[in-house]
Amino acid sequence: MKAIIFDGALTIREDYPLPEPKEKEALIRVTMAGICNTDREIMNGYLGFHGVMGHEFVGIVEGAPEERRDLIGKRVVGEINCGCGTCEYCRKGLEKHCPSRTTLGIQGRDGAFAEFLTLPVSNLHLVPDNISDEEAVFTEPLAAALEISEQIHIKPTDSILVLGDGKLGLLCSLALGLTGARVTLAGKHETKLKIARNQHIDTLDVSTGKQNEEKAYDIVVEATGRADGFEKAMKLTKPGGTIVLKSTVASSSEMNLAPLVIHEITLVGSRCGPFDAAIRALEKRRIDVRPIISGIYKFKDAREAFDRAQAKESLKIIIDFR
Amino acid sequence: MKAIIFDGALTIREDYPLPEPKEKEALIRVTMAGICNTDREIMNGYLGFHGVMGHEFVGIVEGAPEERRDLIGKRVVGEINCGCGTCEYCRKGLEKHCPSRTTLGIQGRDGAFAEFLTLPVSNLHLVPDNISDEEAVFTEPLAAALEISEQIHIKPTDSILVLGDGKLGLLCSLALGLTGARVTLAGKHETKLKIARNQHIDTLDVSTGKQNEEKAYDIVVEATGRADGFEKAMKLTKPGGTIVLKSTVASSSEMNLAPLVIHEITLVGSRCGPFDAAIRALEKRRIDVRPIISGIYKFKDAREAFDRAQAKESLKIIIDFR
Repeated sequence: MKAIIFDGALTIREDYPLPEPKEKEALIRVTMAGICNTDREIMNGYLGFHGVMGHEFVGIVEGAPEERRDLIGKRVVGEINCGCGTCEYCRKGLEKHCPSRTTLGIQGRDGAFAEFLTLPVSNLHLVPDNISDEEAVFTEPLAAALEISEQIHIKPTDSILVLGDGKLGLLCSLALGLTGARVTLAGKHETKLKIARNQHIDTLDVSTGKQNEEKAYDIVVEATGRADGFEKAMKLTKPGGTIVLKSTVASSSEMNLAPLVIHEITLVGSRCGPFDAAIRALEKRRIDVRPIISGIYKFKDAREAFDRAQAKESLKIIIDFR
Repeated sequence: MKAIIFDGALTIREDYPLPEPKEKEALIRVTMAGICNTDREIMNGYLGFHGVMGHEFVGIVEGAPEERRDLIGKRVVGEINCGCGTCEYCRKGLEKHCPSRTTLGIQGRDGAFAEFLTLPVSNLHLVPDNISDEEAVFTEPLAAALEISEQIHIKPTDSILVLGDGKLGLLCSLALGLTGARVTLAGKHETKLKIARNQHIDTLDVSTGKQNEEKAYDIVVEATGRADGFEKAMKLTKPGGTIVLKSTVASSSEMNLAPLVIHEITLVGSRCGPFDAAIRALEKRRIDVRPIISGIYKFKDAREAFDRAQAKESLKIIIDFR
């Protein structure tokens, strides 16, 4: 089958072996898949992953275990973490923290940049008819954005700042906007900020030299992916407030955590989130993800798609396997 | 009056001017005052404080505003943060986060290592008769330890590790022991660990080469005051767990926060806490702080007291102004 591999370099193959579903797994024909910044990190060596990349997808179930034959032919998206099913985390429904988990296209499991993938049937969610394929591809990153309000209590009176107007920052600002709180997205790209502004999010273009007010936000979400984003977040958060770390910065840097103690700031690490809530937000048209799409490329143009995804002005790039 | 000053060096004076209470403030004759690690940090330049040091005390009210004459002659302890009374933090009862606050013996306000001090009457708490002066001195640090369960929900089923068997670590372990959770104190000093063990806290002497199990604790409290304490805490906390930072490490160090995101760990900065709960714990004999006292020194021996406080094996050193 056609597949986009990372094996030390980005490799595009037409002859990659078809995956074979294990017990309780479905075989899914991928319709569309989105390129995420994590894919770029993988190409920089993140977790040492080699195999089919990709973890944001929508597809059609082509094979399923006997007891879930009802899934065949259905359009689905899938949660990316596959737990062992027996450890203390899996028993609590926290497969994403299972110490022996595999993760689609990220760790120990071939991913979604291919004609077919396999996932446990328990990871799959049906996609309502009114959600297009290109919108459905956003389920995984939108779920990650909704994880913030899953983890912490956002009050309608909170003042929230999202740092970074990339895909993740945009989705976080839109997801947090649903809470009724005052949300500001700060970034350097007027065209990206405008996407949020069109959906009732306040924005600040810091490339103009304007600065966010220090100690003014109850909650600051770090979504820049830059090492200095956290230090900046510490300066902008109110005493007693919360910083949410959404981006994994692989490099270490010099920092001092004393301000967290002095100002009793809480720091929350935040990763994968609730698919059902993300699908609901798309189905009910509460968030419009379509303006975040910068381009849709056919598989034959995959290399061009990856080049485009690296460009500073790009947002979501989708690969069309149909 | 007699006072212990930091003016670039530790200075002991007999002729320091008496403090004059401002509006709504009481004049308090100090009975006893405890030396805290923060005093050592001040002598290393923390916050650039110059003046009378000391913030852990018990004393007798000698002067009070007209409307609180009832306080005169009463034995009191006092909260150390004095807010402006009008900002958004003060209006919420969060004087400790008031941007223009003064803090007893730490910032903008002479402290407790003197015969007399002043504090707003609203900062004072009466000391029940069954609490001795030397026990009452622990109200402030015990309140800081109780701040942990004030900030986060500790469940009886939680497994908690406190790193560091100094005064702060000991008090944190004893305060957390009240919750019914499984609490382990890890440190390097058998004599200090024994104090916690005698009050039903599990202990681990890491100087023997034994290590705490990785990813095994729902909550890890960093109370070592060492720069590498936080990195260690990240290794020991369960995915989805919480790290509480109790000690301010003034120096910056190289660190990588990516594990917080990947394992969705929450980091909570924790400082001053509830005096009423600390007084109740002492009054009801739920925590015995007396074994934490390493020595009580008269004012004339203050310099010796400070030398003793610096020694590795020392715990609480108290200065007796009676």
